[in-house]
Amino acid sequence: MDDNAQDPTPDGRPALGIGMVGYAFMGAAHSQGWRTAARVFDLPLRPAMNAVCGRDAGAVRAAADRLGWAAAETDWRALIARDDVDVVDICTPGDSHAEIAIAALEAGKHVLCEKPLANTVEEAEAMVAAAETARSRGQIAMTGFNYRRTPAMALARRFVEEGRLGRLRHLRATYLQDWLVDAEAPMTWRLRKESAGSGALGDLGAHIVDLAQYLAGETLTGVSAVTETFVRQRPLPSGGTAEVTVDDAALFTGRFASGALASFEASRVAAGRKNALRIELNGDRGSLSFDLERLNELSFHDHTEPSVAAGFRRILVTEPDHPYLEGWWPPGHGLGYEHTFVHQARDLVHAIAAGTDPTPSFADGLRVQRVLAAVEESAAKNCVYTPVSA
Amino acid sequence: MDDNAQDPTPDGRPALGIGMVGYAFMGAAHSQGWRTAARVFDLPLRPAMNAVCGRDAGAVRAAADRLGWAAAETDWRALIARDDVDVVDICTPGDSHAEIAIAALEAGKHVLCEKPLANTVEEAEAMVAAAETARSRGQIAMTGFNYRRTPAMALARRFVEEGRLGRLRHLRATYLQDWLVDAEAPMTWRLRKESAGSGALGDLGAHIVDLAQYLAGETLTGVSAVTETFVRQRPLPSGGTAEVTVDDAALFTGRFASGALASFEASRVAAGRKNALRIELNGDRGSLSFDLERLNELSFHDHTEPSVAAGFRRILVTEPDHPYLEGWWPPGHGLGYEHTFVHQARDLVHAIAAGTDPTPSFADGLRVQRVLAAVEESAAKNCVYTPVSA
Amino acid sequence: MDDNAQDPTPDGRPALGIGMVGYAFMGAAHSQGWRTAARVFDLPLRPAMNAVCGRDAGAVRAAADRLGWAAAETDWRALIARDDVDVVDICTPGDSHAEIAIAALEAGKHVLCEKPLANTVEEAEAMVAAAETARSRGQIAMTGFNYRRTPAMALARRFVEEGRLGRLRHLRATYLQDWLVDAEAPMTWRLRKESAGSGALGDLGAHIVDLAQYLAGETLTGVSAVTETFVRQRPLPSGGTAEVTVDDAALFTGRFASGALASFEASRVAAGRKNALRIELNGDRGSLSFDLERLNELSFHDHTEPSVAAGFRRILVTEPDHPYLEGWWPPGHGLGYEHTFVHQARDLVHAIAAGTDPTPSFADGLRVQRVLAAVEESAAKNCVYTPVSA
Amino acid sequence: MDDNAQDPTPDGRPALGIGMVGYAFMGAAHSQGWRTAARVFDLPLRPAMNAVCGRDAGAVRAAADRLGWAAAETDWRALIARDDVDVVDICTPGDSHAEIAIAALEAGKHVLCEKPLANTVEEAEAMVAAAETARSRGQIAMTGFNYRRTPAMALARRFVEEGRLGRLRHLRATYLQDWLVDAEAPMTWRLRKESAGSGALGDLGAHIVDLAQYLAGETLTGVSAVTETFVRQRPLPSGGTAEVTVDDAALFTGRFASGALASFEASRVAAGRKNALRIELNGDRGSLSFDLERLNELSFHDHTEPSVAAGFRRILVTEPDHPYLEGWWPPGHGLGYEHTFVHQARDLVHAIAAGTDPTPSFADGLRVQRVLAAVEESAAKNCVYTPVSA
Repeated sequence: MDDNAQDPTPDGRPALGIGMVGYAFMGAAHSQGWRTAARVFDLPLRPAMNAVCGRDAGAVRAAADRLGWAAAETDWRALIARDDVDVVDICTPGDSHAEIAIAALEAGKHVLCEKPLANTVEEAEAMVAAAETARSRGQIAMTGFNYRRTPAMALARRFVEEGRLGRLRHLRATYLQDWLVDAEAPMTWRLRKESAGSGALGDLGAHIVDLAQYLAGETLTGVSAVTETFVRQRPLPSGGTAEVTVDDAALFTGRFASGALASFEASRVAAGRKNALRIELNGDRGSLSFDLERLNELSFHDHTEPSVAAGFRRILVTEPDHPYLEGWWPPGHGLGYEHTFVHQARDLVHAIAAGTDPTPSFADGLRVQRVLAAVEESAAKNCVYTPVSA
Repeated sequence: MDDNAQDPTPDGRPALGIGMVGYAFMGAAHSQGWRTAARVFDLPLRPAMNAVCGRDAGAVRAAADRLGWAAAETDWRALIARDDVDVVDICTPGDSHAEIAIAALEAGKHVLCEKPLANTVEEAEAMVAAAETARSRGQIAMTGFNYRRTPAMALARRFVEEGRLGRLRHLRATYLQDWLVDAEAPMTWRLRKESAGSGALGDLGAHIVDLAQYLAGETLTGVSAVTETFVRQRPLPSGGTAEVTVDDAALFTGRFASGALASFEASRVAAGRKNALRIELNGDRGSLSFDLERLNELSFHDHTEPSVAAGFRRILVTEPDHPYLEGWWPPGHGLGYEHTFVHQARDLVHAIAAGTDPTPSFADGLRVQRVLAAVEESAAKNCVYTPVSA
Repeated sequence: MDDNAQDPTPDGRPALGIGMVGYAFMGAAHSQGWRTAARVFDLPLRPAMNAVCGRDAGAVRAAADRLGWAAAETDWRALIARDDVDVVDICTPGDSHAEIAIAALEAGKHVLCEKPLANTVEEAEAMVAAAETARSRGQIAMTGFNYRRTPAMALARRFVEEGRLGRLRHLRATYLQDWLVDAEAPMTWRLRKESAGSGALGDLGAHIVDLAQYLAGETLTGVSAVTETFVRQRPLPSGGTAEVTVDDAALFTGRFASGALASFEASRVAAGRKNALRIELNGDRGSLSFDLERLNELSFHDHTEPSVAAGFRRILVTEPDHPYLEGWWPPGHGLGYEHTFVHQARDLVHAIAAGTDPTPSFADGLRVQRVLAAVEESAAKNCVYTPVSA
Repeated sequence: MDDNAQDPTPDGRPALGIGMVGYAFMGAAHSQGWRTAARVFDLPLRPAMNAVCGRDAGAVRAAADRLGWAAAETDWRALIARDDVDVVDICTPGDSHAEIAIAALEAGKHVLCEKPLANTVEEAEAMVAAAETARSRGQIAMTGFNYRRTPAMALARRFVEEGRLGRLRHLRATYLQDWLVDAEAPMTWRLRKESAGSGALGDLGAHIVDLAQYLAGETLTGVSAVTETFVRQRPLPSGGTAEVTVDDAALFTGRFASGALASFEASRVAAGRKNALRIELNGDRGSLSFDLERLNELSFHDHTEPSVAAGFRRILVTEPDHPYLEGWWPPGHGLGYEHTFVHQARDLVHAIAAGTDPTPSFADGLRVQRVLAAVEESAAKNCVYTPVSA
């Protein structure tokens, strides 16, 4: 018998069988989420890491051992078909999301799908349709915008909902990395349009568009965009070079339904910026600011205070009454990147047990996809203001 | 005789007579510059604060006493005509810049003109033409983009020139203030198109466009822009309300001649941001970052260093070998906002004494004006990419 | 059969049976460490969470289920006696450390003991003696100073070893929390001398003394100290009040063997400081600075650089070539508090498999204990300089 | 006639004649203060920079021209005797403070004396006695602890007075510089006990002791101290070396009358710290934190706020209702180091015009001197707790 198996537990809570497709960076992060969630939070179901799937039999078996999955599959259809898989967790590149997700939903499984939801709006629409049909059968489909689940971002959303910002005027967001600054950094699937859909736009821009719409509580109605690929040929690991067919960077401005202005910048060539997802909202009663490189902090300015003592305060989002903190450590003992996946697992388990609508839903993922599509259209048309389809 | 007079000094350096038009916020700041420059720096000429001009005789006399000007005039033509005025320093709203500057140049005077250089490209072009004619007669005409003269920005320019950033990929700049968040903040000349030309765009955006072009060492070739006025009616001090005819905020993206991407945001409704001029440049060998609210600091990332010890370093720009620091205090004893005007006075005096071309010149001011005009055109045309006229 | 069991794994690596005593805050943190280490790092042995021990049968059973331990014991002697327990991990209050650790070592088990190693120097000496005897039999005994294992602190130690700081002049360290600011915060075992040994001194001061000696690579030779208890009576949960018999705060200065000066402050009444372990070292070639509330960052100043570009640089300690980062996420994707326990588990497993001396050893723990004892003696004697016994 | 003279002004406000002794770093800073105060603030008297004094006739004449003093004297007794000198401003090394100040007071002049007030308690006591006698004749004597007059420190004092911190528990202060890190930095008067009194202790420690007592609103009752001289021989400009007879660094702990604990560190060998005067106060209702390298900011934590939104807020101390800001620039347009001298001049002029007691008085300066003496005594006696004489 296999020590990785996690059958129904002694305390009688039923298991929720998880099957994961893909086991690279995202797969490792999701594994930490599934492994930990029930150890920290009081969950109605206990996630059982029953099977992981990849195309290379040896590699997937090694990954299963390393990451703690009981079984290894080499065909995602076989994974979906397993009786001990209740949730299909999709951690593959974007070009396979739609096919796997729709098949899983049709097979009666719950689905968690990494972002961006798909590589095209059409795929995303088909996924939403499948999710809606499945929803009527009680299935849950969630998009993996994990950054919503940093405690600071969840607290920011709570502050916006409470009206602490008043009417929104500005939102500005950047997501900057630098791993493509070096012109000799090699070609990967992330630099090919056919596999990744887009470059910094879909990889990083998708996150900040989702956070923007989540925090603001409203959608973008139109955008004006410019994109660029600075390094157009990159070396292949096998020798020679290949053409980069995605953007290195994407900049866009936009408008929310309320009339608030927004700006976005996603880049993988911003030297020295490692994971600089920064987002700021300015309302007529207050402002919020966040930097993922300091993810345990939220900066808040209350504009209704007397000016003599007003200023951005640095809230360490580690208090027991902060989102997700009930299960963790004492104040000031910060969390890390992977905790967002623990929280994601927690929330998905609760949604499944309670039958409630998940957030972010596939429809939320589609809303992001439509913004990305409008960005690409605007960039292709010389920045012209391009409405986001509704 | 008047104690404010500053005649030729005992050490024999000739005086340089200054005449200033306008005595409000900018006039007070310029006065500090003229008063202090020769006390801190070794100058070939000693500025003499000989006359200040304003329309209200009582008010200008009181301002002269307060700010330390020997004489007060109520007609700027009379100021220009004075024999003891060698330099005309224009601190009025933008709608009068062209007329005063051109008259002063035609009268053989050197001119320092506050930014933005003018309210329209046409005015700015006429000013440049007048400056060029005057230049052939040995006169100097400088635009008052004072932020170039924070030591940190001058050091940043030096670093770019030395190639420490390599090829530029990104520049992003914001200039955020919040004094118009309150919908009850009253109407002023700064909120009327006919006097101010534009709103946050000309007031704040002009600064970041100039800094961007100065630091990058190249000009913007095109922009895509959106502007907004959130509060469209404001109370008049006299009762009733008036229509705000300028922007509260302007956002734009752009391209440099080299292909580098740029983004800009100017706003006077960003709650909690008091004077947040922030600018960052990312090149393929390094990056720079600056925040005017911490003006004695420059953040620099050297991307050629081994990653184990790389990171943005906080340079306290207060060392003796930093720009403008030869005359000031020991390391760590920071400067303030008004020191930029002392440095401006220093540099103008040197340019006049040596007969060298001033920077920023009127032509530099025109280059900014052309960007602002393209921004306004793009905003009026739904963000369409609009070339900057050359 | 029990799903918590972790028998020898399919890939054939032998299991290392862990038995943990105590399951409160520290027990939860250690559990995360044991659960995760082999999933992230390539370990020669796979930790098996075989048994946890506590006095209350129901509570320990619930904790076992929650935290993922296969069996629950109510007598620590029974836990030690288990064949499937190779390592005894002691997470109890300090007054029981010596008895449990010595018994475990005598029973042939490896031991990981939480800090402070003991409540008195005498107990710690007995533990070191037991560890030395056991060491000759191949057993490992480690003290749980987990903060050495933040990547930033491990990197700092590397920099010191490489000579990047030159001769040490200053070290200053504070560890500030605020959970006792409120005079109504209730009495706990941490506020009683008989259970906790001391207050902020042993709880927080022990950490910064260990880090100081670890980073400096030398021991403190003497100290001068003052301690204070500001709130002397606290409410009992059962009603009434009890006397606080430990310090709220301890401040001390000290000297290292090299002559460098050190200062320390530990407090649990520093309003607004949640987990502010801050440490700075100044040498004649460079300086280092760290703040546990931003644990993914290390600040480094290279004093050999030209002053024009020198400054404290913020190193994001998340690069692949940084300590402990080989198993984690891409650059900029930060870690949290509990990761120190994953690293502790990793290092202990390696030490056991290789038979190498562990760090921090019990002897290191004793060195800290001797400093704490000297602090208490100095505080009792009006701050007089008190040598640390060697 | 001399253009530096500043006779009674046209608006009729009487002049206040200033005579300054010493014209090096402090003299330059004070000159900026005298020159600017009446240009920014509405003062009842207009400071007239009538005479400066130094021993070298040529050098003092050049300094007078450069710094803007009407006359130059080479004998401080002659300066005191001048009819046009109402205020004697002493900017010399500490060993001459007592003699000059007492002579000036006996001659009926107001006195501003740089810190530390004297090199010994005995001298300081004599100065206080002279000041008290002079006070009865209406004269003012002020000690130049200029950092009280950063707006942020004045605001901090206001917050303490308003009870925003509650009962004080902790104060910690460091003042770190690095200009003596280099063992080859040359010998100066600041490194000789006979001229400077002490080293980092009197130069830097005096500032933080004064700020501590000012902010806390109470005096230190005892201290425990250690001092060190790391580099004991330094090169003479003339060749050869000389012995350093003052401390490079001084660390001490102390108690306030209220029982609050305090710690202090002054050093001139803290590599990378240029002017790091940092001070933090923790009370049971709130905390304050300040860093002179970011002197326009005050950090404030309100501990009475709900934890969900609590945190240290960064107050930009540049609002119109902040101390000293009525005369300066709009919000966010920061001040620099020398502005403290402008504020000092302002406050001294007001005290003279109104006949009110100045702060900090000579008695405040003596209170600091007594702490410094206790520090030296404690350091000489192995850190023993040494009461501060009352």
